[in-house]
Amino acid sequence: MAKKLIKREENYSQWYNDLVITADLAENSAVRGSMVIKPYGYSIWEKMQAALDKKFKDTGHSNAYFPLFIPKSFFSKEASHVEGFAKECAVVTHYRLKKDEVNGGIIVDPDAKLEEELIVRPTSETIIWNTYRNWIQSYRDLPILVNQWANVVRWEMRTRLFLRTAEFLWQEGHTAHATKNEAIEETERMINVYADFAENWMALPVMKGSKSENERFAGALETYAIEALMQDGKALQAGTSHFLGQNFAKAFDVKFADKKGKLEYVWATSWGVSTRLMGALVMAHSDDNGLVIPPKLAPIQVVIVPIYKGEEQLSQISEKVNIIKKNLEAKGISVKFDDRDTQKPGWKFAEYELKGVPVRIAIGPRDIENNTVEIARRDTLEKETKSQDGIENYIEELLVKIQENIYQKALKFRENNTFKADTYDEFKDIIENKGGFVLAHWDGTPETEQKIKEETKATIRIIPLDAEEEKGECIYSGKPSNKRVVFAKAY
Amino acid sequence: MAKKLIKREENYSQWYNDLVITADLAENSAVRGSMVIKPYGYSIWEKMQAALDKKFKDTGHSNAYFPLFIPKSFFSKEASHVEGFAKECAVVTHYRLKKDEVNGGIIVDPDAKLEEELIVRPTSETIIWNTYRNWIQSYRDLPILVNQWANVVRWEMRTRLFLRTAEFLWQEGHTAHATKNEAIEETERMINVYADFAENWMALPVMKGSKSENERFAGALETYAIEALMQDGKALQAGTSHFLGQNFAKAFDVKFADKKGKLEYVWATSWGVSTRLMGALVMAHSDDNGLVIPPKLAPIQVVIVPIYKGEEQLSQISEKVNIIKKNLEAKGISVKFDDRDTQKPGWKFAEYELKGVPVRIAIGPRDIENNTVEIARRDTLEKETKSQDGIENYIEELLVKIQENIYQKALKFRENNTFKADTYDEFKDIIENKGGFVLAHWDGTPETEQKIKEETKATIRIIPLDAEEEKGECIYSGKPSNKRVVFAKAY
Repeated sequence: MAKKLIKREENYSQWYNDLVITADLAENSAVRGSMVIKPYGYSIWEKMQAALDKKFKDTGHSNAYFPLFIPKSFFSKEASHVEGFAKECAVVTHYRLKKDEVNGGIIVDPDAKLEEELIVRPTSETIIWNTYRNWIQSYRDLPILVNQWANVVRWEMRTRLFLRTAEFLWQEGHTAHATKNEAIEETERMINVYADFAENWMALPVMKGSKSENERFAGALETYAIEALMQDGKALQAGTSHFLGQNFAKAFDVKFADKKGKLEYVWATSWGVSTRLMGALVMAHSDDNGLVIPPKLAPIQVVIVPIYKGEEQLSQISEKVNIIKKNLEAKGISVKFDDRDTQKPGWKFAEYELKGVPVRIAIGPRDIENNTVEIARRDTLEKETKSQDGIENYIEELLVKIQENIYQKALKFRENNTFKADTYDEFKDIIENKGGFVLAHWDGTPETEQKIKEETKATIRIIPLDAEEEKGECIYSGKPSNKRVVFAKAY
Repeated sequence: MAKKLIKREENYSQWYNDLVITADLAENSAVRGSMVIKPYGYSIWEKMQAALDKKFKDTGHSNAYFPLFIPKSFFSKEASHVEGFAKECAVVTHYRLKKDEVNGGIIVDPDAKLEEELIVRPTSETIIWNTYRNWIQSYRDLPILVNQWANVVRWEMRTRLFLRTAEFLWQEGHTAHATKNEAIEETERMINVYADFAENWMALPVMKGSKSENERFAGALETYAIEALMQDGKALQAGTSHFLGQNFAKAFDVKFADKKGKLEYVWATSWGVSTRLMGALVMAHSDDNGLVIPPKLAPIQVVIVPIYKGEEQLSQISEKVNIIKKNLEAKGISVKFDDRDTQKPGWKFAEYELKGVPVRIAIGPRDIENNTVEIARRDTLEKETKSQDGIENYIEELLVKIQENIYQKALKFRENNTFKADTYDEFKDIIENKGGFVLAHWDGTPETEQKIKEETKATIRIIPLDAEEEKGECIYSGKPSNKRVVFAKAY
């Protein structure tokens, strides 16, 4: 780690971008808006995938794979869906290149034009519901509980590593049900799975609720979302689960015979999280020294750095370290022993701070004499000296504490940055000067939300599912309202 | 399972296609040449992925992710590479759709034409080596050992489920090395990893060797491959590992400073296997009753079917089954208890035979009386009655035996279908009437291989790495040769 990061308070946006790059998570590629996810970043994503995949399977889902390309005509079948995605579609028009006989190089072969253009999937509802038509005849074929891990493309004009990229990785669940209630239950089940993952794995407290009409998924009757607060006071949508009603079943003519033989349209849900979660993880917890990764998602949970002069000291230290490493690994803890002689301990300390390794153990000649090690926590930057005896038990507990502490810190931050506003002036003041979540009354109309957005850049992040009834007046229109919704500026 | 499969000997090709579809592995999609991998098929692929991924990590590799799109200009940089792939590229030319104001529906927005067309990756050497240029400055940055799990697109004109599809899933390893020898070692290491996976997980014996110039990867100096024999006597290339020399380093100007500070081009390898392995798995082992899946890759290893009349019998049986199931699962064996009352036992037997579940346990009232179960092996279709006591140990050993038996059966088939030919007439007779692998002398020229291919459709599958020296004459040209190569008709 050669250069220092800029401080968050100086330029949060640049701090984020520099951190993602210097900590080897990802970088911009030569392809506009597409990123390269580097091995260290990808190994965190793999841990997220594994935890989520297990949760999906534990709730009865199976994985499958559907085509990358969607025929253009499929896209038009659900009106609001095409409306939502048409402006950002990568379109395949040809299937061959050839030598340019005149100018050299290669050109697209004009003779290889497709009869119907193919859209690179921005999401897969249309191709999947076209497939489900053949899978579903009777109520016995339902429910279908399928998930797909895939890449998708949305041609975004302004991109930021992980948060908004033209191509990103995600999972998309697509389920089919015999009844409306069952589909709504599934939609709620999956937003709860996401909230549980965010809180227990990412150490990220989230608000859960439904979206207003303006913010709803293109084609959904209801969108549930989890929203997390970043350190700059902006909200980040971390996952969504959509109740699609019978919209796609009608668009693709998917009917089933119920027990009495009567034909009914099938009910649908879809739900997804993406590599955007990587951005949330970085933005929520990291500090001016670098990444802070919750132990449950850390590719390396413990790094051991030897402090030594000469081969003999290193060999004494290594002997001890190998025992400690083995005992830690026996507990399922991932450990790296960095005994490279090309870098000094101070350089290594800074490097692993930057990379967010939760626990660092340093061990030198005096530790060998005293049967001790020095332990440093990444989350608090505290150091302490501990006996080597039973150190693996201590570290095991410490990792649990660190996971919990990172969560509590983020929760406290959110509590300190969640405000109530009862007038529009108060609202504007908070949004402009403090940021954070603002609980306010709203008259329930898209027009009011739109006006507030235009004037303050804040949008309704969620309408809480279990909000208390409270009589009040819309901060903008003064019309009556019976519960507060959550506003914020958002990524 | 309503209808019977056609027999292999009647129409092998149709048997394969029908089996893939009726056993719920995959189906053709609405997108020309693209398939849908169904949940049951995908769960086998997931098992393949997990085993391979572990092998890659155990040999020092990390996963990463590179863009789906490759700028057209990158493609032209390595001459033989573009030559090899230009004819089958999906090309993105536009990034937006819009409403057709005249005719209704949606059209590609002509104002949203890309300045430079983007190719949907058919393989990622070019985009990756363009990225590596920034990752590599010094010998300290080497080796780079990176793998990617991804989808790729090759616009094939004739497609077949799993074996040849326009889009397929694969992994592609891309490594960078300081020396030629290290890169060659890596190329060999990975073909050995593939051979080990094929034999020990897929129960698929493979021949290992290098490719002739005609069959080499576009841009490689040397291609190693594993080749397996299918039941119709045709060969299937199951995995390849390429020594790329400095071709891509030169095309993308990737140099490193060696220990003396001298700038040198980097040495490269790439290696991959794909969902084609699913096709190999089906074609190698399955029979006229359906799939035969080696236990190590079977999503369900043991299915238990109750034979009962009435609730009381079912409840007695279920009690026993739950104990057996628990004991099997404690050994890490995956078990399904199919107690559906919507289907009869005979239907279930046929269904799980079709799906290739390695072991079926049936248990009825008489078994309850006698403390027995009936065990049926999918590979041999043999049945036996066993005591329930310690049945989990018996099944555990049986699964190992079945894995081994499937391998031995395939090996024996290959041995019985591997021939030596010393004259061209003999060669043509074997290729035309028997199929299989034919070991024959060849003069080493691409021209001869091409002629033989045109006249017999057979190609050189591999030049064995460790072939015995043997003086002989080329079957086609009569020129001298000092070892036999392996010919076959291939998928």
